[in-house]
Amino acid sequence: MTSISIIGTGKMGSAIAEVAARAGADIQIIRRRAGAGSSLERGDAEYGLVGDQLTGELVVLAVPYEAYPSVLGHYRDRLDGKIVIDISNPIDFTTYDELLVPADSSTAVELSQALPAGARVVKAFNVNLGDTLSTGTNGTTTTTVLFAGDDPAAKIAVADLIEAAGLRAVDAGPLSRARELEAMGFLQIVLAAIGKTRYESGFALLQ
Amino acid sequence: MTSISIIGTGKMGSAIAEVAARAGADIQIIRRRAGAGSSLERGDAEYGLVGDQLTGELVVLAVPYEAYPSVLGHYRDRLDGKIVIDISNPIDFTTYDELLVPADSSTAVELSQALPAGARVVKAFNVNLGDTLSTGTNGTTTTTVLFAGDDPAAKIAVADLIEAAGLRAVDAGPLSRARELEAMGFLQIVLAAIGKTRYESGFALLQ
Repeated sequence: MTSISIIGTGKMGSAIAEVAARAGADIQIIRRRAGAGSSLERGDAEYGLVGDQLTGELVVLAVPYEAYPSVLGHYRDRLDGKIVIDISNPIDFTTYDELLVPADSSTAVELSQALPAGARVVKAFNVNLGDTLSTGTNGTTTTTVLFAGDDPAAKIAVADLIEAAGLRAVDAGPLSRARELEAMGFLQIVLAAIGKTRYESGFALLQ
Repeated sequence: MTSISIIGTGKMGSAIAEVAARAGADIQIIRRRAGAGSSLERGDAEYGLVGDQLTGELVVLAVPYEAYPSVLGHYRDRLDGKIVIDISNPIDFTTYDELLVPADSSTAVELSQALPAGARVVKAFNVNLGDTLSTGTNGTTTTTVLFAGDDPAAKIAVADLIEAAGLRAVDAGPLSRARELEAMGFLQIVLAAIGKTRYESGFALLQ
């Protein structure tokens, strides 16, 4: 199977580590600070600190969107050639009323433009509340992971990881479609915050 | 129960007429042309032609977004005081790749700005593929209808209609949230077009 570096040790980083483990991937977890992320201690992962070499073919930015500049400060050039998975929902959490990216763009497109040309960005996992990834189910359905990107090989690698973990991977189209994925992720988080859905469920794509 | 005028006799107009009938509403169906819409013949509805007086407290624009100017040409001033339900997904169907409204807006907001101040626009039903409205179910779940708007009384009237029909009504927030609802409706139609979901199902909001 593939190898994956996960930058960040929060709820989503932890959930994606669980997905990667079920897929049989080699896992590297990059902590932002020494001692941080003690809640994410896995015997099946290697650990590093921000600035360390990334060993994964896939790299997941599992940090808040506001922390992207800091991560890019360390890794921008080293992401050349990598498959970079953007899971972010750039919500303004002070208002829960808008996104922090231009309306005609997305974090995924902004990230792609900020990275070297050889970095292949795939938007994925942002419409999944973390618990649906850890458990693999959403209600009575298998969790669906929507993804979007412009590089076919990168998309296949991400879909393979998702499917190998027992989840359903659905290609939503080109990277520009991240705009719609982020709108949907925003809506889902708002609805969860006001109790219209649970953090263990959310939107499902039925077949 | 309430009264509803449905302008348009296509698949969505037909589905919403079925919802309204289950809710026990008085139904008026406005055909765009004499003789059109023979597939939508209901014994429980009154029929009219575009230009006729609207008898419903609620008015549903069940025409393509491109036809809104024509409808407003007939009804703009007469929608003052009405609850206007915008169900549209303004997709550019020549490309299936973008929406026909400014990225930072929505058809619902554009419509609201084009109408008299007393018209109260509610975005609803645009994330429901028609069959999930006609049957009331989406997979094994009760169909959820997401809606958004700025007028509390108008939103209650729309939610009452939805719930009286046996569906689940979920308030997604202010009318500005129509932007996210339209992004999600766009995504859903794209996914249905490429066979990733069926026109009988689509996105469900699980509890």
